[in-house]
Amino acid sequence: MPQRWKLTLEYDGRPFCGWQRQENALTVQQVVEEALTRFDGAAVPVAVAGRTDAGVHALGQVISADLSRDATPDRVREAVNFHLKPHPVAVVDVQAVPADFHARFWAQDRSYRYVIINRRPPLTVDEGLAWRVGAPLDIQAMQMAANLLIGQHDFSTFRAAHCQASSPVKTLDRLDISRQGERIEIKARARSFLYHQVRNMVGTLALVGMGRWTQDAFAAAFAACDRRLGGPTAPPDGLYFTKVRYPAS
Amino acid sequence: MPQRWKLTLEYDGRPFCGWQRQENALTVQQVVEEALTRFDGAAVPVAVAGRTDAGVHALGQVISADLSRDATPDRVREAVNFHLKPHPVAVVDVQAVPADFHARFWAQDRSYRYVIINRRPPLTVDEGLAWRVGAPLDIQAMQMAANLLIGQHDFSTFRAAHCQASSPVKTLDRLDISRQGERIEIKARARSFLYHQVRNMVGTLALVGMGRWTQDAFAAAFAACDRRLGGPTAPPDGLYFTKVRYPAS
Repeated sequence: MPQRWKLTLEYDGRPFCGWQRQENALTVQQVVEEALTRFDGAAVPVAVAGRTDAGVHALGQVISADLSRDATPDRVREAVNFHLKPHPVAVVDVQAVPADFHARFWAQDRSYRYVIINRRPPLTVDEGLAWRVGAPLDIQAMQMAANLLIGQHDFSTFRAAHCQASSPVKTLDRLDISRQGERIEIKARARSFLYHQVRNMVGTLALVGMGRWTQDAFAAAFAACDRRLGGPTAPPDGLYFTKVRYPAS
Repeated sequence: MPQRWKLTLEYDGRPFCGWQRQENALTVQQVVEEALTRFDGAAVPVAVAGRTDAGVHALGQVISADLSRDATPDRVREAVNFHLKPHPVAVVDVQAVPADFHARFWAQDRSYRYVIINRRPPLTVDEGLAWRVGAPLDIQAMQMAANLLIGQHDFSTFRAAHCQASSPVKTLDRLDISRQGERIEIKARARSFLYHQVRNMVGTLALVGMGRWTQDAFAAAFAACDRRLGGPTAPPDGLYFTKVRYPAS
């Protein structure tokens, strides 16, 4: 009997064309499945909590996978990390879970963090790890607009054209904006998100923060349920998939 | 009459062989002087507050330089940042200063931060930006040992062989260790430091934190004033030159 495992992953999204396997492009899924396969011997397909885009990072991505090889959680973590080298992907936690656990279907909610560095000078140590916005951002104004998005709404204004979700209606639990010096963090939590939803919300909120959009303009664009009326998509650099919650076992 | 300027720099140390100009190796000094020269027309030599080593980062390095070209501080910052591309070096602040200001000689004290990620899994987004220590570190034990170093002492135990300082006696004002989850920060402040002093202190304190050295062993090694009795040099990855203080003008 194989054992089902829950693995929590951290990765730097920069070298990858996102999570999902593609022909002729390196993806996180390929690197992770290959490492698991090298450890286990047999092919190991995985289920993932959130498919991240090219350049998007993860601090708490979750996958589930079956391994036929008998091992302790520590041994699985160490061995898979060994086989993940030299890619910037790490298994940071491993738990044995019931055979019906599924990283995607069992997820109660997902959390993202978006990091903006609000300054004129270019980024150095944060290059690729944050979005630099040169114009001063008023985070009180951004938070006021963000509060409109909390709850159950049609998020079509922030939905990418390629989104495959069956409905544009989602429930946003949290959208909190905080600043420490030049660093602004936007924390979002929902059961699930539309494709590009966080980056489209951030890009549009930035227009409000810069004073280019009023609260009324933001509210009108949101109510229109039309992507063409939303703001730009913020770059992947600042986005981190931080956490997935599951029912307490 | 040329104007003297004080420029505060941020840089990612990874692609550079340290601050100081070398034949056949890329250094921060070369990149900065070339950018200033492209802006000014004439050659612009600079004075620096702290010469950092290969791979060491800076968030608040300070240089002084004379420019013959007339410009506002904002214009100097924008233009020099333009000419610094594509290197991960940025001018984050610019001030006009008196003609006798000198980034090195006027410095009252210098501050460094050392970042440790204390966990078994390899680093991903922090790779090159922190030192991963796999064994659990007891920061109370590290702080107790660190407290011994505060004040005026002979720091020969933490002095690199190549150090060119005339005396091994330095006054350490601050050495504070804090932890937030797996992230440990060590903040050091002194008028000046010996070559590799921070990295040697950190490498030796880590031995205390792992429980491999007792407080007595640490105290004895420090009192011996002999580098051969000190611990290893922590890698440059975790070291950030954060701040220089000058007399209020």
